[in-house]
Amino acid sequence: MPVNLTTPVAAELLPVSGVLLGTAEANIKRPDRKDLLVIQLDAGATVAGVFTQNRFCAAPVTVAREHLAAGQGIRALVVNTGNANAGTGEQGLQDARMTCVALAGLLNCAPEQILPFSTGVIMEPLPVAKIVAGMPRAVASAIENNWFDAAHAIMTTDIVAKAVSRQIRIDGKTITVSGIAKGSGMIHPNMATMLGYIATDAVIPQALLQAMVSEAANRSFNCITVDGDTSTNDALMLIASGKSGVVIDAANQAAMQAVVTEVATLLAQAIVRDGEGATKFMTIAIEGGRDAAECRKIGYAIAHSPLVKTAFFASDPNLGRILAAIGYAGVEDLDVAQLRLYLDDVLVAEQGGRAASYREEDGQRVMQQSDITIRVVLNRGAASAKLWTCDFSYDYVKINASYRS
Amino acid sequence: MPVNLTTPVAAELLPVSGVLLGTAEANIKRPDRKDLLVIQLDAGATVAGVFTQNRFCAAPVTVAREHLAAGQGIRALVVNTGNANAGTGEQGLQDARMTCVALAGLLNCAPEQILPFSTGVIMEPLPVAKIVAGMPRAVASAIENNWFDAAHAIMTTDIVAKAVSRQIRIDGKTITVSGIAKGSGMIHPNMATMLGYIATDAVIPQALLQAMVSEAANRSFNCITVDGDTSTNDALMLIASGKSGVVIDAANQAAMQAVVTEVATLLAQAIVRDGEGATKFMTIAIEGGRDAAECRKIGYAIAHSPLVKTAFFASDPNLGRILAAIGYAGVEDLDVAQLRLYLDDVLVAEQGGRAASYREEDGQRVMQQSDITIRVVLNRGAASAKLWTCDFSYDYVKINASYRS
Repeated sequence: MPVNLTTPVAAELLPVSGVLLGTAEANIKRPDRKDLLVIQLDAGATVAGVFTQNRFCAAPVTVAREHLAAGQGIRALVVNTGNANAGTGEQGLQDARMTCVALAGLLNCAPEQILPFSTGVIMEPLPVAKIVAGMPRAVASAIENNWFDAAHAIMTTDIVAKAVSRQIRIDGKTITVSGIAKGSGMIHPNMATMLGYIATDAVIPQALLQAMVSEAANRSFNCITVDGDTSTNDALMLIASGKSGVVIDAANQAAMQAVVTEVATLLAQAIVRDGEGATKFMTIAIEGGRDAAECRKIGYAIAHSPLVKTAFFASDPNLGRILAAIGYAGVEDLDVAQLRLYLDDVLVAEQGGRAASYREEDGQRVMQQSDITIRVVLNRGAASAKLWTCDFSYDYVKINASYRS
Repeated sequence: MPVNLTTPVAAELLPVSGVLLGTAEANIKRPDRKDLLVIQLDAGATVAGVFTQNRFCAAPVTVAREHLAAGQGIRALVVNTGNANAGTGEQGLQDARMTCVALAGLLNCAPEQILPFSTGVIMEPLPVAKIVAGMPRAVASAIENNWFDAAHAIMTTDIVAKAVSRQIRIDGKTITVSGIAKGSGMIHPNMATMLGYIATDAVIPQALLQAMVSEAANRSFNCITVDGDTSTNDALMLIASGKSGVVIDAANQAAMQAVVTEVATLLAQAIVRDGEGATKFMTIAIEGGRDAAECRKIGYAIAHSPLVKTAFFASDPNLGRILAAIGYAGVEDLDVAQLRLYLDDVLVAEQGGRAASYREEDGQRVMQQSDITIRVVLNRGAASAKLWTCDFSYDYVKINASYRS
């Protein structure tokens, strides 16, 4: 079950003016479930995004990148679940383009003004006909106050829908930021992918919007890991409808960035809390490093270690495993005698071994919690990094060993 | 259960002249099991080794490196199981040195002529008194024809003992190479470490011996992975007693290297076959790369992917996961449309997607086997690399989530 994560309250999700969300049951993989989302944007909206770095990127990622680069103004995003259109070669690209052509026909715009996204099973042909058949319903049902429904339409094996809204005051006006995400492994067994869509009614020029989504991704989605696998389809999109009339510039950029990053971080953490088989949510804080890169290296070594993750599943303070992971992280000149390891507020290790003050029952007490912070103080500089991950349970293997079905 | 691996036949393990092996029940962690091995060497033997790159290396690793560097001629190696003497700080170093002092006293040599090794639980003080008390029995019981017993004495949670012997003819004389190893995860839940000891009766000068053990390690122990974790205690030692009188030089070096590498490879593969919870043994062959480094990068991305490993556990030909792992391996300019993916002899993917000739039942047939080769032909150069790994099962989680006990 998700760790300290519940279904969002529909009434707390706020509409973003100029952003219409419609869903449909397109029967892509299973009947009787919403599996198609169309996000329509009024003219004048700006859209920016970051995509998977996987060389085997999915066809819709390639097409979405092309269409963003075309710069004709994005008018809609279309997201299907049930099929990732990844590992599908030339046919996959044609299918992704066909999806855009069909939606452009319905919306009276150019295909280059549509961004396609897919998530689901890899290496199977995209059922384009089903998606096209479902589009008119998704378009017809579109309304602004529909984030709750949209969050559900993009779920695959997510247990809980992920959505969050925040508001801030800028220049005396209220700005809304709403976002949804899906994902519970970096790649799902069959269902692939992390997807995130965040929209605001602020006016944000294209170049600034791109900088803001990159910054938000670096502090949120790029700081989480469930199993270390990177999907072929990952994407985070930031939409600025401009309907509030409030222009983001140098004077208010920091405030706007903060709220976008907050929404992205809450969505990213929700993915970890809903991680495959997760029973514990772990914050990994690396402090006192020479630079952020070495802090992230050490953080990921801990976060990816199956031995650390299974120890946390067992609530076993087998903390030598964390020291071992720090040791093989690849920081060549690390002096392990200088660092300190904490579990929440409990000092576990210093001077290359167990801390004299450490008592097993203190470690045991922290390990019983469902939210735990592993803090490593390197004592060699002023840089830091923070990552979030979950433990590794029987259910992770069960979920990922189950047949595609 | 180990994958196609059985206990070695004692009669097939060959003594190496000048190398005496003695064991004892020192009661280090559990009663009634052999947990102490002393390998005595006649004067004149050369010894070389490779050690873990983990910055949190265990105290005995630090001391063994120092003693090798002292160059006084190694007269004995002492190995205890049940405690890794890792993450033990300054006290750990004193304990490792004390072990050497005690054995040196029994053998009438200098402490710098002893190499200490430990494997077992991390971050707990080494029970030096128990080890010292067991030494006289291990020394007194030493004989040359004792590799079977020695292989058992260094086991921790290994299910099967690992030992192998080979002979070759050089300069008209028979040279023997015998080796033992232990390990079934890179770090065991509590029991840490991969250890390997290989001995020959050839005469091999120190510098050449060091080159040979490095080469053997690079083609064997450095090509295996169970869970990606690198132990604090890993070590592979190569001993040349010189008793055969056959001197290894430029003329016969290749033949000698081949047999040492073969023994090392069989031992390394045995560790994977006995991998924690393993049900399948996978050979990952990457071919047609620009250089060996990129081949290894891609091979390790596949070998470390929990999604690939769980799919193999399930015998599920969910091969998109392998493509995804290739894609995120970090080879920046990789053109995925050029590569081919094979499962044994079955062509699975080409041109960025599923091969036209691929049939699910062919993939299914190969996946049912217990030994499987994943072959990736990159078609961009002449370099290659080969790795060995195992799948990821419920039992892996079970073994690693169990309390230290």
